[in-house]
Amino acid sequence: MSHNIAVIPGDGIGIEVMPEGVRALEAAAHRFNLDLNFTEFDFASCDYHERHGKMMPDDWRDQLGSMDAIFFGAVGMPERVPDHISLWGSLLQFRRAFDQYVNLRPCKLMPGIKSPLAGRAPGDIDFYVVRENTEGEYSSVGGKMFEGTDREVVIQDTVMTRTGIDRVLKFAFELAGTRPRKKLTSATKSNGISITMPYWDERVAEMAKSYPDISVDKFHIDILTANFVLHPDWFDVVVASNLFGDILSDLGPACTGTIGVAPSANINPEGHFPSLFEPVHGSAPDIFGKGIANPIGQIWSAAMMLEHLGHADAGKAVVDAIERVLAAGPGDAPLTPDLGGRGSTGELGETIAEAIKNG
Amino acid sequence: MSHNIAVIPGDGIGIEVMPEGVRALEAAAHRFNLDLNFTEFDFASCDYHERHGKMMPDDWRDQLGSMDAIFFGAVGMPERVPDHISLWGSLLQFRRAFDQYVNLRPCKLMPGIKSPLAGRAPGDIDFYVVRENTEGEYSSVGGKMFEGTDREVVIQDTVMTRTGIDRVLKFAFELAGTRPRKKLTSATKSNGISITMPYWDERVAEMAKSYPDISVDKFHIDILTANFVLHPDWFDVVVASNLFGDILSDLGPACTGTIGVAPSANINPEGHFPSLFEPVHGSAPDIFGKGIANPIGQIWSAAMMLEHLGHADAGKAVVDAIERVLAAGPGDAPLTPDLGGRGSTGELGETIAEAIKNG
Ligand SMILES: CC(C)[C@H](C(=O)O)[C@@H](O)C(=O)O
Ligand SMILES: CC(C)[C@H](C(=O)O)[C@@H](O)C(=O)O
Repeated sequence: MSHNIAVIPGDGIGIEVMPEGVRALEAAAHRFNLDLNFTEFDFASCDYHERHGKMMPDDWRDQLGSMDAIFFGAVGMPERVPDHISLWGSLLQFRRAFDQYVNLRPCKLMPGIKSPLAGRAPGDIDFYVVRENTEGEYSSVGGKMFEGTDREVVIQDTVMTRTGIDRVLKFAFELAGTRPRKKLTSATKSNGISITMPYWDERVAEMAKSYPDISVDKFHIDILTANFVLHPDWFDVVVASNLFGDILSDLGPACTGTIGVAPSANINPEGHFPSLFEPVHGSAPDIFGKGIANPIGQIWSAAMMLEHLGHADAGKAVVDAIERVLAAGPGDAPLTPDLGGRGSTGELGETIAEAIKNG
Repeated sequence: MSHNIAVIPGDGIGIEVMPEGVRALEAAAHRFNLDLNFTEFDFASCDYHERHGKMMPDDWRDQLGSMDAIFFGAVGMPERVPDHISLWGSLLQFRRAFDQYVNLRPCKLMPGIKSPLAGRAPGDIDFYVVRENTEGEYSSVGGKMFEGTDREVVIQDTVMTRTGIDRVLKFAFELAGTRPRKKLTSATKSNGISITMPYWDERVAEMAKSYPDISVDKFHIDILTANFVLHPDWFDVVVASNLFGDILSDLGPACTGTIGVAPSANINPEGHFPSLFEPVHGSAPDIFGKGIANPIGQIWSAAMMLEHLGHADAGKAVVDAIERVLAAGPGDAPLTPDLGGRGSTGELGETIAEAIKNG
């Protein structure tokens, strides 16, 4: 079975970690006899924007739409193109146009990685954030009035639909059902955000009726972030709106010490459109060009992509390889500086690729 | 100089910790020769709602408007009254009607309190969150369409005004100017929330021009929450919109292990209306009635109120007393269970009141 994969490095350290992601995929393809065809695209980058005055060519949907998956690095160089232009002109377009309505982000304390939380060890933290990825607080509806005067006012709509909420809840409930603890936590803020969030709560309560074996709780987002720090062991699957999910899926990996390691999958569960796989970290302009970016977020995203394409064994082999290399520690393996090592992006990527091949 | 203080215990543990807050105020009044007149109000509680079908009497503005300050416990009993009704019918009304546009929340690692973050000691974490408190994401503008059908959609507006943003920024810049590090961090999300947040960034950049001695940086809210955990020592004064400030001012205290201890001040800086002082914690229905609620959030809020009323020495004496009692630890002092002790709310409150008297 062959798969066509769009490779979009994007900006900053996206350009540095992408080759390691591809190297890991090639290693897995070799071991598991997969036929992966890579096509690289230079758009969805600020370089492209500087050359063309826009982030992507007009026919980007056609170019990408027939691919089986999109393997993405990172986008954004705020010194060159304002973030809201680069992001709304690329990544946020993909998520919407390809209806990738689930953003799935594992938060797992990995062996060999020190959690910034006192007294936490591998096994203590292991949950998923399921983020709604196409609507909610990320709308482009709104505007400005009385521009340039003291009365200036800006308004932006949060838009939530029954369809949009229900389908991501369904995914989250189903995911919780596959896990031993069968527990789902909903992120809300219905005490303060008085229209959209009570509606979110209503839909959660409604959906819960169809999943009597899942135990459901909810927290307001403020205390939920506190509980990520105080009680990360409470969580199994956490479902959240677009903005809350964005926050929780950076905070969760921070609590596991893996902000440079965390992967994500932007999924169109029906498979009508290609899904997109990218590290949680951004383009990190501050360390770009030094060759020290941690490639594990990109490689772990490759594992999620393999699983999504139907090769769970290959995906697991990639995650196992990451865990083995991390567990060996900086002494034996060339970990990058953020992990306490002195290795380069390429050295760490190569070590993991070897580990994938050797099984 | 005499001050009229409205005392509103509210709901749940608000009822339990309020007497300890008042006891601390009386101790400080005695020592510093202040004349504090307390008037207790039973509204802004779910009890009141059950008796009257609303959270407050129609003339609540008149009853409270002439007070010098409002000392508030906590509100909300979601089993009895939905949160968005109890909160929008009381606390959120106060903040708006009395134009308490600054919500000031210290995050400080106190002696004797164990941070959930590895290797952090008192002195390492000491910053303020300045939260916009009257507009932004907490609007009541919006609604629902196609109710009860598959097309159901809910919309809620975020509304930010130049006036509303500039005045809270000004407060934050001024506060940063009084501190040794003179550093201000702005919470944004201008890469994803593409209308209101770029405007927020613009106003920050504009205001910064008037404060050349303050060093300013900004983070998107997702990575900012991560940095609260990874680098809490980076922060001095953090300014944020209503929702982001809400999140950061629960997460910050969680990082200092003081979620039950953290105070807040809802301030109308011009003094046209009474300001309101309340603990960051809520009504905590799960522990209500057990007599184990930690009263320090309420007592520390009393200290902020004293300072606001012009008695910085008395406020400092209260904070000093809290620090001394905490530093003595559960062995010597009757700390509440959340602090590792076996004391009751009243025992801890009494110990602190004694410490205030004895100076
Ligand atoms: C109870 C709730 C409405 C309130 C808020 O969100 O403002 C609380 O969390 C706070 O921080 O004061
Ligand atoms: C870059 C930004 C627009 C994006 C988001 O907010 O979705 C990122 O933070 C993410 O989590 O993928």
